[in-house]
Amino acid sequence: MPQAARKMMALVLGEGGVRVEVDRDLPRAPPDGALIRVLKAGICATDLELVKGYAGFRGVLGHEFVGRVESCADGAWVGRRVVGSINLGCRRCPVCLADGPEHCPARTVLGILGHDGAFAEYLTLPVANLLEVPEGLAEEEAVFAEPLAAALRIRDQIAVPPSARAAVVGPGRLGLLIAQVLALAGTEPVVLGRSRRSLELAQELGLAVGLVEEADRDAWDLVVEATGNDAGLASSLELVRPRGTLVLKSTFEGAARVDLTKLVVGEVNVVGSRCGPFRPALALLSRGAVRVRPLIAADYPLADGLAALEQAARPGVRKVLLSPPPAAG
Amino acid sequence: MPQAARKMMALVLGEGGVRVEVDRDLPRAPPDGALIRVLKAGICATDLELVKGYAGFRGVLGHEFVGRVESCADGAWVGRRVVGSINLGCRRCPVCLADGPEHCPARTVLGILGHDGAFAEYLTLPVANLLEVPEGLAEEEAVFAEPLAAALRIRDQIAVPPSARAAVVGPGRLGLLIAQVLALAGTEPVVLGRSRRSLELAQELGLAVGLVEEADRDAWDLVVEATGNDAGLASSLELVRPRGTLVLKSTFEGAARVDLTKLVVGEVNVVGSRCGPFRPALALLSRGAVRVRPLIAADYPLADGLAALEQAARPGVRKVLLSPPPAAG
Repeated sequence: MPQAARKMMALVLGEGGVRVEVDRDLPRAPPDGALIRVLKAGICATDLELVKGYAGFRGVLGHEFVGRVESCADGAWVGRRVVGSINLGCRRCPVCLADGPEHCPARTVLGILGHDGAFAEYLTLPVANLLEVPEGLAEEEAVFAEPLAAALRIRDQIAVPPSARAAVVGPGRLGLLIAQVLALAGTEPVVLGRSRRSLELAQELGLAVGLVEEADRDAWDLVVEATGNDAGLASSLELVRPRGTLVLKSTFEGAARVDLTKLVVGEVNVVGSRCGPFRPALALLSRGAVRVRPLIAADYPLADGLAALEQAARPGVRKVLLSPPPAAG
Repeated sequence: MPQAARKMMALVLGEGGVRVEVDRDLPRAPPDGALIRVLKAGICATDLELVKGYAGFRGVLGHEFVGRVESCADGAWVGRRVVGSINLGCRRCPVCLADGPEHCPARTVLGILGHDGAFAEYLTLPVANLLEVPEGLAEEEAVFAEPLAAALRIRDQIAVPPSARAAVVGPGRLGLLIAQVLALAGTEPVVLGRSRRSLELAQELGLAVGLVEEADRDAWDLVVEATGNDAGLASSLELVRPRGTLVLKSTFEGAARVDLTKLVVGEVNVVGSRCGPFRPALALLSRGAVRVRPLIAADYPLADGLAALEQAARPGVRKVLLSPPPAAG
């Protein structure tokens, strides 16, 4: 059977909303790319924003995945378990040549911008984006490579001194990865949430916790905003000390009101932060330095993708995974 | 005649607005402070914001000045021409001890927060805040020490590579100082304004200029926002390239809407920037490395302070100076 005729199941965002399609054409890998069978995918806040209309994406959702290379011009990749970085740059422009594909003006992004994503039986990525998953690293852990890389991005951008008084605002899936990343080298971050209940998992992970409302204002050297809402941003700016650093880690649609007096008079440094390095993420997962299993709330068959999205959108819900049907034969 | 009985002229912001008082008590210098006769003062955008209600200040306005020490416990200061840094910290808290007085939570600020300012015949400052004006530096140049120090603050906070593509949005008094400061070490900043007319002075100063509307989007390594309005901030964020730096240099009241998608997805670094170092400012003024005389629009007697404020508030108006009446005798 020629590849063009093969069909697959996929969770597709279209004009009418999200639906599970069962007869979507398989994506076709470009000459420098691989066709990858998805083994496990993860739902991220960005997926939920896309469903709400953020960035106007249409197509197969999903950018957190682990899979197995099914076909590839470079035969050495076939059969390997892989994760993949999600930005596909033109590889010719000054941005790509200097900084890589993450900010290429002509880029596509897996499941986010002009490139079908991972909530499907198959996806394609250029070989340049692939990293082999170390043997022994389970799929339900490897699927955290993308969000863990995003958390590690903070360490690419700013120094995190062990003695820094650091807070992570937002005890959700991403916030708990960020807090663990900050804690890797001796910093003792405090995870701040709106309610005691929201902080239970952070405590289980051995992280210090506190209520946003009770936290000292103008006091924290480093505040990471990981709530994805305006109130969280406003609180984070109140918490950071003069001359401190505020890292914005959640993408959300549109404009927010920002207290410029605090920002300018307090000489705050605000750092937008997005995609990060996969290789150290895989290494940290492999040696168990970051705990991700406790973050898993559920694992749905891809066919139940709508129910999975619904659960992931509930406040306080941790990582929801999706498992496509196993390969036939 | 005992000092307490002496009266002076001052431009005072009260409940009913600004007015010239002619019988205001002279300020009394603390034991570690100096009483300074003001020779020349400068009106800054922050003064105009204070008049509009920013920060709720009540008292004598003004924080840009050059003066002569009239009395001081340390007699060596008496008779010297001085400028002075404007933040008065408690000198005991961890912030003061680590970083200096600029961010002390208990600070007062000359003419801005809890300490009478420079639009008067006399002001007081601690000796620790004073710097002697080099011989040969004219008063109408030395009065720029404070805003030039604020412009230099950018170089305290971030690296400005000579090859950086840099833009200053806002061709006003502060913007033209900032552009000159960026140009000091080889960077060639472009001053961006809303109209050709607004850019004439920048051109006279030998700076490259352009229209905000015509400038490349997502293209500038460094953008300094010096307009003090929401539209300027929005433009500045559009101009800065992904992974670029946006310096916010104007204080203005309240909250502004900020495009968080650009900030986070573009991983922009936003740096609030306020008061800067006086010593290098004086040195640069002394050797004529920064041109300030062309920035002077007018020099009013203090008695005409209201007219001076009015002129300074007009769009495109450059630096307006105030001269108290010369000392009697």
